[in-house]
Amino acid sequence: MKKVLVFLTDGFADWEASYVTAELNKSRTGYEVQTVAIDKKPKVSMGGLRVLPDYSMEDVLPDFNMLIMPGGTTWRDEKNQKIQKIVKECFDQNISVAAICDATTFLGMHGFLDHHKHTGNSLPYLKEGAPDYCGDIHYITTPSVRDKGLVTANGTAALEFSKNILLELNVCDEKDIQDWYEHFKKGSVSC
Amino acid sequence: MKKVLVFLTDGFADWEASYVTAELNKSRTGYEVQTVAIDKKPKVSMGGLRVLPDYSMEDVLPDFNMLIMPGGTTWRDEKNQKIQKIVKECFDQNISVAAICDATTFLGMHGFLDHHKHTGNSLPYLKEGAPDYCGDIHYITTPSVRDKGLVTANGTAALEFSKNILLELNVCDEKDIQDWYEHFKKGSVSC
Repeated sequence: MKKVLVFLTDGFADWEASYVTAELNKSRTGYEVQTVAIDKKPKVSMGGLRVLPDYSMEDVLPDFNMLIMPGGTTWRDEKNQKIQKIVKECFDQNISVAAICDATTFLGMHGFLDHHKHTGNSLPYLKEGAPDYCGDIHYITTPSVRDKGLVTANGTAALEFSKNILLELNVCDEKDIQDWYEHFKKGSVSC
Repeated sequence: MKKVLVFLTDGFADWEASYVTAELNKSRTGYEVQTVAIDKKPKVSMGGLRVLPDYSMEDVLPDFNMLIMPGGTTWRDEKNQKIQKIVKECFDQNISVAAICDATTFLGMHGFLDHHKHTGNSLPYLKEGAPDYCGDIHYITTPSVRDKGLVTANGTAALEFSKNILLELNVCDEKDIQDWYEHFKKGSVSC
């Protein structure tokens, strides 16, 4: 099985990677989802889930095909700035990166967005009045952007983010991915 | 703080309660979200998150105002049928219950839907061709229903489910809840 790693931080936004991890982790995709964090202690989501990371950044990580970075409330905390190390390794090794909401801001603050089209402006970040759960970044209007191995999205675009990740990882043909997206976007009479 | 409990099962559907738990767990709502499961062992979501339950069903539970039951892949497993005990206690004590996707089916199979309007038909359940992540229930067309302390929804209606829960718990006025819903439903240029 190929692997996708999700980076867990305290205060990670529950919904932002929720659709895509559930879809990717199905056996038919050929991918398995695991989690990594700065250490092995449980990370508590915004919604109160205490999640045990599979790996710490100090571990020897398995080969993986993408790093997914959900947004959340602590991407600006001093202790989390060291996460740039694993991101740099992904960029250096051409491993895809998918970041949403404040994780996109984090990428911008550390210069990772400079040569990519992306959803969040890299600088300036500060804009008064944005909702607290996403920090105070000003986003451009496209809900999610995929460019050269990088997927970004704003925090209300979990489904568009998911679609771009499924396309990036080429899990099935584009029509099936579009159907999957529309099934959830429009709702369905059957579940 | 008033409490809302989320019932965790192995294979629980990551996205289905993700929006509402993150919103409810903000300090301004007056609610705190915690988790309960049949035992204290980590429960692994569809998307691969290993979540540590705060309580086992064997524990003395704190007072709580609602039980949220995300759908998932194991609601028909023999070992999970004992979950009806906590559901019965909620119904007996007029504690609100919110169930989505296959958790709604579970309620129907144990007779809890008989005197409520709800999204999922209680019987018959079997319908060929429904997606595997939600079981094979046939749903009526309303994405989410709120009736007499019970909220139900189909698995593509996480936002409608969330809106009904926020209304049921009366976390703020209806207009603000509608604005919150539309913010996520329509997407937003700022996150």
